[in-house]
Amino acid sequence: MKNGKRLTIMERTFKDRGEISYIISPGKDFFPSSMILSREVPAILEEFKNVRAQTVKLCDVLYPEDLVLSTKWYIAHATWFFESYILKPYLKGYGEFNPVFHRLFRFCSEPFPFSRPSVDDIYAYRTYVDAAVEDFIFHPMDEEDLLQIRNLLDMGIHYEAEIQEKILNNVKYNFSLNPLQPPYEKSEPSFQTEKTPLYPLDWVEFSAGLYNIGSSAEEFALDHERPRHTVYLGPFALANRLITNREYLEFIDDGGYRKKELWLCDGWKFLQESERTAPFYWKGEKGEWMQFTLRGLQPLIENEPVSHISYYEAAAFARWSDARLPTEAEWEVCASQENPHLGNFFRSHILQPIALKNQDLKEHKKRMHQLFGDVWEWTESAFLPYPGYRKYEGSAGDYHAKFMSNQMVLRGGSCLTQQMYYRTTYRHFLYPASSLGCSGIRLAKEI
Amino acid sequence: MKNGKRLTIMERTFKDRGEISYIISPGKDFFPSSMILSREVPAILEEFKNVRAQTVKLCDVLYPEDLVLSTKWYIAHATWFFESYILKPYLKGYGEFNPVFHRLFRFCSEPFPFSRPSVDDIYAYRTYVDAAVEDFIFHPMDEEDLLQIRNLLDMGIHYEAEIQEKILNNVKYNFSLNPLQPPYEKSEPSFQTEKTPLYPLDWVEFSAGLYNIGSSAEEFALDHERPRHTVYLGPFALANRLITNREYLEFIDDGGYRKKELWLCDGWKFLQESERTAPFYWKGEKGEWMQFTLRGLQPLIENEPVSHISYYEAAAFARWSDARLPTEAEWEVCASQENPHLGNFFRSHILQPIALKNQDLKEHKKRMHQLFGDVWEWTESAFLPYPGYRKYEGSAGDYHAKFMSNQMVLRGGSCLTQQMYYRTTYRHFLYPASSLGCSGIRLAKEI
Amino acid sequence: MKNGKRLTIMERTFKDRGEISYIISPGKDFFPSSMILSREVPAILEEFKNVRAQTVKLCDVLYPEDLVLSTKWYIAHATWFFESYILKPYLKGYGEFNPVFHRLFRFCSEPFPFSRPSVDDIYAYRTYVDAAVEDFIFHPMDEEDLLQIRNLLDMGIHYEAEIQEKILNNVKYNFSLNPLQPPYEKSEPSFQTEKTPLYPLDWVEFSAGLYNIGSSAEEFALDHERPRHTVYLGPFALANRLITNREYLEFIDDGGYRKKELWLCDGWKFLQESERTAPFYWKGEKGEWMQFTLRGLQPLIENEPVSHISYYEAAAFARWSDARLPTEAEWEVCASQENPHLGNFFRSHILQPIALKNQDLKEHKKRMHQLFGDVWEWTESAFLPYPGYRKYEGSAGDYHAKFMSNQMVLRGGSCLTQQMYYRTTYRHFLYPASSLGCSGIRLAKEI
Amino acid sequence: MKNGKRLTIMERTFKDRGEISYIISPGKDFFPSSMILSREVPAILEEFKNVRAQTVKLCDVLYPEDLVLSTKWYIAHATWFFESYILKPYLKGYGEFNPVFHRLFRFCSEPFPFSRPSVDDIYAYRTYVDAAVEDFIFHPMDEEDLLQIRNLLDMGIHYEAEIQEKILNNVKYNFSLNPLQPPYEKSEPSFQTEKTPLYPLDWVEFSAGLYNIGSSAEEFALDHERPRHTVYLGPFALANRLITNREYLEFIDDGGYRKKELWLCDGWKFLQESERTAPFYWKGEKGEWMQFTLRGLQPLIENEPVSHISYYEAAAFARWSDARLPTEAEWEVCASQENPHLGNFFRSHILQPIALKNQDLKEHKKRMHQLFGDVWEWTESAFLPYPGYRKYEGSAGDYHAKFMSNQMVLRGGSCLTQQMYYRTTYRHFLYPASSLGCSGIRLAKEI
Repeated sequence: MKNGKRLTIMERTFKDRGEISYIISPGKDFFPSSMILSREVPAILEEFKNVRAQTVKLCDVLYPEDLVLSTKWYIAHATWFFESYILKPYLKGYGEFNPVFHRLFRFCSEPFPFSRPSVDDIYAYRTYVDAAVEDFIFHPMDEEDLLQIRNLLDMGIHYEAEIQEKILNNVKYNFSLNPLQPPYEKSEPSFQTEKTPLYPLDWVEFSAGLYNIGSSAEEFALDHERPRHTVYLGPFALANRLITNREYLEFIDDGGYRKKELWLCDGWKFLQESERTAPFYWKGEKGEWMQFTLRGLQPLIENEPVSHISYYEAAAFARWSDARLPTEAEWEVCASQENPHLGNFFRSHILQPIALKNQDLKEHKKRMHQLFGDVWEWTESAFLPYPGYRKYEGSAGDYHAKFMSNQMVLRGGSCLTQQMYYRTTYRHFLYPASSLGCSGIRLAKEI
Repeated sequence: MKNGKRLTIMERTFKDRGEISYIISPGKDFFPSSMILSREVPAILEEFKNVRAQTVKLCDVLYPEDLVLSTKWYIAHATWFFESYILKPYLKGYGEFNPVFHRLFRFCSEPFPFSRPSVDDIYAYRTYVDAAVEDFIFHPMDEEDLLQIRNLLDMGIHYEAEIQEKILNNVKYNFSLNPLQPPYEKSEPSFQTEKTPLYPLDWVEFSAGLYNIGSSAEEFALDHERPRHTVYLGPFALANRLITNREYLEFIDDGGYRKKELWLCDGWKFLQESERTAPFYWKGEKGEWMQFTLRGLQPLIENEPVSHISYYEAAAFARWSDARLPTEAEWEVCASQENPHLGNFFRSHILQPIALKNQDLKEHKKRMHQLFGDVWEWTESAFLPYPGYRKYEGSAGDYHAKFMSNQMVLRGGSCLTQQMYYRTTYRHFLYPASSLGCSGIRLAKEI
Repeated sequence: MKNGKRLTIMERTFKDRGEISYIISPGKDFFPSSMILSREVPAILEEFKNVRAQTVKLCDVLYPEDLVLSTKWYIAHATWFFESYILKPYLKGYGEFNPVFHRLFRFCSEPFPFSRPSVDDIYAYRTYVDAAVEDFIFHPMDEEDLLQIRNLLDMGIHYEAEIQEKILNNVKYNFSLNPLQPPYEKSEPSFQTEKTPLYPLDWVEFSAGLYNIGSSAEEFALDHERPRHTVYLGPFALANRLITNREYLEFIDDGGYRKKELWLCDGWKFLQESERTAPFYWKGEKGEWMQFTLRGLQPLIENEPVSHISYYEAAAFARWSDARLPTEAEWEVCASQENPHLGNFFRSHILQPIALKNQDLKEHKKRMHQLFGDVWEWTESAFLPYPGYRKYEGSAGDYHAKFMSNQMVLRGGSCLTQQMYYRTTYRHFLYPASSLGCSGIRLAKEI
Repeated sequence: MKNGKRLTIMERTFKDRGEISYIISPGKDFFPSSMILSREVPAILEEFKNVRAQTVKLCDVLYPEDLVLSTKWYIAHATWFFESYILKPYLKGYGEFNPVFHRLFRFCSEPFPFSRPSVDDIYAYRTYVDAAVEDFIFHPMDEEDLLQIRNLLDMGIHYEAEIQEKILNNVKYNFSLNPLQPPYEKSEPSFQTEKTPLYPLDWVEFSAGLYNIGSSAEEFALDHERPRHTVYLGPFALANRLITNREYLEFIDDGGYRKKELWLCDGWKFLQESERTAPFYWKGEKGEWMQFTLRGLQPLIENEPVSHISYYEAAAFARWSDARLPTEAEWEVCASQENPHLGNFFRSHILQPIALKNQDLKEHKKRMHQLFGDVWEWTESAFLPYPGYRKYEGSAGDYHAKFMSNQMVLRGGSCLTQQMYYRTTYRHFLYPASSLGCSGIRLAKEI
């Protein structure tokens, strides 16, 4: 507390901030004046309540037994975030719901046969923490803490939205292994599935030069999206759309999964061990492929973007295509010129990537298609700290730094992503063998 | 159907059967006129309803999430038994509850992330099958089938009782790994836990000779308990009681877990891999040992029989004691002279083996103690077919023959066993590394 | 030393010993007056030198690199036996060759990348120990020790012979995995390989009764073959010959490896994990089967006994044949009526089991064929102590007791066995999944 | 062949080449006019013979059995490189030594029990290929091929030098696991081991800006060092020397291996699985640490650079030090200002990193110490293609592209590296868990 002055979030006034040069100077200004700083407290509260309610709503159609398989952990883990990073450090006199829960629900906690705490216990935990947070937001707080708290609130809200995507992917995975092949969503899909002509693949060119990528201090962003910094890129081209199931089928039919020369050494080992001969959720065989979706087993739609592809498969496909995957810098340079609000995100409730439609072809005004939503796009960039990266202080700093080895960056969001929390600078990351996220392929090449 | 005559179970009259010589002649008479044949149908029905209700009652205090971890499978598997071996082959026009369930719930079915079918689905399956069985019992049936059906009903009833013990052990295991260490039973134990003097260990001697073991055709028994047959035994002695926690502690304190020379080669590997240095449910350290029980974590009671011991540990302890474990024939010869109705079985609801009491010592009328109930006693006999063994015809024959490799026989029942279905000839079997059953040690030696 | 009197082996006189009753009384007489007791010292010495030379001779055609893969360990381990059990305890003033070797070459020693000690070091060790043993045999020794030493010498000689079979199987295994498929023996086989008519399979019957099996104190035998004891057997029949490759092919062609109902539960898991669809050394496919042998890859000979079969495969074949495997008691009762000196053992240098020949059929005097040599025959008996078993005193007692879990007994010797050390009471033992020993199938059934 | 004109390497004249801009244009000029282009054929031949002889010399003190453990594979693999990439494609009428060898010795070949081909066979293969290459160098060749062949020759020579380092590390690893703890080099080390004062750690600063890294077309380099390209770096500082054993001990003594918060998530899992509590070759305990070296087990020297450190350990140490590891671009920018010829490389035959000496401190002219030789320095950069990367055409292109996932870049060479083939642009790469290369730590930080 500075000068004994205490403010509520509402009372705080905000100074203008100048442009930040690309040569970052982390330190005092590293934590941004969050987006929410310009919003009223009721808006933050509203957002908090919305995102929390959305998680519960997602799980409404599930049985308690469905939740045992990791989902319950995620629900509790998102709650733990608010308790552990906001309530415990900043709410004086806050009494923990259950001290053992910290050990159970923190990052990288040990797995165990997770029947208890029960679903009811988890929801009680949730209600308890929600009430405390909602109450806390109106508390007066030290000026010094204010910025940090708002940032942590934003982080928590965004993290909860991320977890919703994880839950959906986790449910899909478990249901796909279940001999009953149950659907998560029973309603018919709202999109057309008849055969459409393949949208032509073009290359969009970008010239060499200095570019800035990453998130600047003005915007809300997570630690690993910062700081905004300069990169030098040579000239490159990106494909104007995602790779489709039909194109991926050609790769398979050409023996793609049997040609060792197309694969990374680790990728080949992965193929041998997993005995994979097609994308993870594909079932059946040539000519009669089916695909497991959140609406259960469905016929494969040829012009739909291929999804649930591992990095190894994406890299082999790119090599087979005499191309490569984009770097994350290339992707971001391209995406920063587009409107992130257009795309097949979760709110379409299609729950599956969709084919480019005829009218897209006719109008053909856009250079780039499917950059946002549909599938996360694998990049050729490892998930590593940006130059000048600083982890957040306190234990929230464990948030991403801990994962900066062996994983690759994906960009663009998917049909299971909450659009409102999506940012162009967002760095998603997965192990190269992972196919459980809704991930696909956009090609790149030198020019 | 013979001669067009059809009987209900009640109408059937029973012929006397002569003594069966120990040189068995399997074949037409292999399947016994079951014990239940002399009972009225209402008695069978009562027994069926009782055992089925008992399973549900056992699970009453558990959450649906608790059931996901194998228990749900057991509940469904016991139901599958009746559907698969009785209803489908013998009840004309029976419609399966769900054809996929056969694949899910048969013996040795593939494991999968078992969130669906839900607990509700499983209980609906149960209710459906129960109704069909209850109805079926009063149907007229072919004379030829009658014996087989009764036998299968008995098998199913006994198997359900076995499964109840498996469920309890399974719940104990999962709860023990849970950081919350939840108890299954919240009430206080009804037995005394104060320190009592150690009951003296004596040897009871048996002379060499020909003995008959196994179950004869007159009694109900499972395939692997048959046929009754002759064995020749040299002279031997059995300990008059089980080994206690205090005695086992001496073994530990003497470095028992570090002395390679005491262990079977496979046992030593097991120790290295499991990093075990004490019985599975013991927690803590010298002087302050605790033990996880169905009543949660409790202080170790010294004179209580040691339990949840693997064969490897039992064999090492026996070697350390300059003794050996009994063979199953020795055990059965001894047990056939005792009254199996006395012992700490499940119905005492103590749920834990108990120390011999002072008055046992004073009266000291019995030669042998704790033969029945408390803990299953490891024998030095591999689980293999008896000479003249014949698996039951039909798929029920898979019941035990499938497991006749790599496992050892245990005898005597435990504090989690349903006494009314226990028989002196009963052969329980576990892999030598298993400690999840309530298993303990009785010593034997040559004389 | 009794009465200060010291004897050399030569001076000792031998008392007659009476018949041993089947009710064994282990203890003072447990260790037999070995066979070698009636032989002159020069005979023992000769035998020692022969068996030791044979091991070296076996390895003559191998490169040092070939020996690295376990063989070197076996060569050293056999040497360790003599050093550890005879020289160190009984030869006063004996200086160990290298104290670290004990840790490297004892039973169940930890594996390590075994490039050192080098082959030269191992042979130097061998020469050193041989010289000491040869010298020691002529030393005067205490009367008390004499029997024990002679017994240990016999044990060591027999163990060395066993190890020779292990070495051959080990070489075969490693060569079979080598892409060059090198032969161990380059000369042409000396046996006829043209197509012969299948020798008819008959059943030889045995009546119920009391039989004695195991080795009595008069004969040399290992600990686990003792004591001779009584068993009661019901009536049974054994097949008059081994199962052939052609018969095993019928099992394969009938889908034997795909029919779950034929397999033990553990056996089915083994199949899934090993992806086995034919015997281990078979290569190729229907109609064109080849077999890897010590003479390299050879066409499969149809009437040759099937070999390198795991217990799981033998049990599944027996079930498919509506028969079973013999117990070890049944096998021994049968074998004790035959002449063990007739059979295809190592000394034929055929190195492969051989088909019954035409003239065998014509003469047809023998009831039983191929009992000895050709292949070790799996029995349905677990490798467990005989009643009254006592492990040898001292660390040599670790010899077999350590292995008495999870393994099954095989009988009869193989084409790689040293016949002169073979006994009818000999109990060979392997894990049920093992196919690396030369093991095959003889069927049995009830009558 | 262009215009029927054929040249030998000697006849070729070389055009001047202009400066290459940092905006690379791969394609025709991608393959450099190799360094060796300006040398006479005899020089190339000399280099080839030298590097090949050096491999054999390294193995002279080893037994054939030592070579079985991977070393033999390396010796053959280096030979396979010349046969597969030069002789087979370019030497008309070349007859392969053994066609099976291609399968055995190519990149990522399947492992097998590698007793055959024998060491003698491998050396015969070597001699055969050497003769063919030596002969081939004087052959006339097509102008088009000439550049490619020279480049492949250089690649092969450099690869052979790399393999020598792998062999030494491989021998060290196997010897360290051997209970005999044999030394590879028996002579005493030539360096001083007495306690010296710790050389002070300073930070050397670099300003932000555009830098070029990677290898340009003028120099010999491997595919993954190309192309030379521009990067933008923020301001940074590098430590003036490597981290010492003494400093690493402080990390251990401060509980570094037990503090989860210091470790990457994957690193923590690695610690749990490997049960590591100190660097791989350290043995003993606090106060009495020993270290396994190529001269056998030696006392730990405190001021020697810590070595055989995994990336996980390096990253945890950096975090504990409130610093980070350098990126490879930062390292190269720094190193390009230094003289790569000064450092403790293989030719010093010390075979171990060495402490900075007193006189270094006194003179203190250099800003940076130990950049070259001693240990490979972990960077925070993943091993990925440089922008504009093109794999070499033909199967030699598999050389590095195959490994571009899951590995991290190391820089600077080690005490086991052949200095003459070392370049400042050289990118070494290892999995983050690997500690078998001689790898250590230099810290970096933002300024």
